[in-house]
Amino acid sequence: MNDKRIGIIGGMGPEATARFYLKLIERTSVSTDQDHFRVIIDSNPKIPDRTAAILGEGESPVPYIIETGKTLEKAGVDIACIPCITSHYFFDEVQAGLDFRIIHAIKALNRYVKSEYPQVKKIGVLSTTGTVKTAIYDKDLNGLEIIYPDDSTQAENVMQAIYGEEGIKRGNHGMKPLGLLRIAANKMIACGAELIIAGCTEVPIVLKQEHIDVPLIDPMDVVISELIGE
Amino acid sequence: MNDKRIGIIGGMGPEATARFYLKLIERTSVSTDQDHFRVIIDSNPKIPDRTAAILGEGESPVPYIIETGKTLEKAGVDIACIPCITSHYFFDEVQAGLDFRIIHAIKALNRYVKSEYPQVKKIGVLSTTGTVKTAIYDKDLNGLEIIYPDDSTQAENVMQAIYGEEGIKRGNHGMKPLGLLRIAANKMIACGAELIIAGCTEVPIVLKQEHIDVPLIDPMDVVISELIGE
Repeated sequence: MNDKRIGIIGGMGPEATARFYLKLIERTSVSTDQDHFRVIIDSNPKIPDRTAAILGEGESPVPYIIETGKTLEKAGVDIACIPCITSHYFFDEVQAGLDFRIIHAIKALNRYVKSEYPQVKKIGVLSTTGTVKTAIYDKDLNGLEIIYPDDSTQAENVMQAIYGEEGIKRGNHGMKPLGLLRIAANKMIACGAELIIAGCTEVPIVLKQEHIDVPLIDPMDVVISELIGE
Repeated sequence: MNDKRIGIIGGMGPEATARFYLKLIERTSVSTDQDHFRVIIDSNPKIPDRTAAILGEGESPVPYIIETGKTLEKAGVDIACIPCITSHYFFDEVQAGLDFRIIHAIKALNRYVKSEYPQVKKIGVLSTTGTVKTAIYDKDLNGLEIIYPDDSTQAENVMQAIYGEEGIKRGNHGMKPLGLLRIAANKMIACGAELIIAGCTEVPIVLKQEHIDVPLIDPMDVVISELIGE
């Protein structure tokens, strides 16, 4: 039962990786420990910042991500994922450097939205500025209109909630980052977003379904469904 | 900063492994993701049940634990740990099969208790029956009197809380396993225990310091302190 080996190319960031694994465990039906999947994780926070690289302000993370994936390759994983949406900008290069299949989170999300919310036309994305600038969601969410917060909301709410002094990446999960993200989400809903994507792995650590009035989808939940074969 | 590579031989059980890693992250002081340790985890729930093996009723887990550790060896870890107390019964054999240092949780606990609670003479242990029967705590906690729940409390409270239908290993973290463990702890305190050890990794998932009136020590917290060099 559950015999395939799952790999996680992690560390971007580490906490998102640990919570992703915890959620994967919680979503696996078992009656004893031995029913769980074997999971190999290389959580490598030394991988250079993805947003900086995308904005042309930092070293490419690709060789580091591939080197991290090699730990999983040597351990013989059958399928893997990257619990960091922003890094999907580099997906094709990373996949080409590794011999196991990696689930592409945005393509998985596209399959899920088409199947579960076929009536939805306009979706709002909460993600890092790097992800916004790459238009990675626009590229792989076919036929949907994608909207983002306006520039100042993106800078002063979303990025502050993730990277700020009191932000999630500094270990703050309280009302401050939640309040910032909630305002950004509600502005997009006011502009017609019928569904909000928790578009980088830090967002759903604080923003939950009960905080907004339209469906909130974490692409990592969709990745987990595909990993465990639901 | 924080340049050493940490390994986790995990999966015994998987949830304890994920929570151990989450705690390690929370206890690492950082200002950016890149300050975190690189951590390689092989979480292998297919390792045969340790309690069964110790009781002579199941296959030895040793070759499986070593094979799991090889993932970390290939990834070049500098230091590692096993977030499963019961498996420490096999520690020497496992350490002999791997080329990196593994922190021995009970020996680390012994160093900690001697340093932080020098006046304590009698400690109570909540752990699996496998661990109780091996007397692993008695062996490595030098000069302390170790007590356990009486046989029926061990079977009907502790083991039910961990392995039962409504137990922690089935994903139940509510009042049921907590109530069972609290009764067992209080019985030992009534017998003179000045300190309670959360003696297997499932216990502290539900039993917290606020639930009992003497210090509650999770050996895994002590292991984390040594891993991160506090």
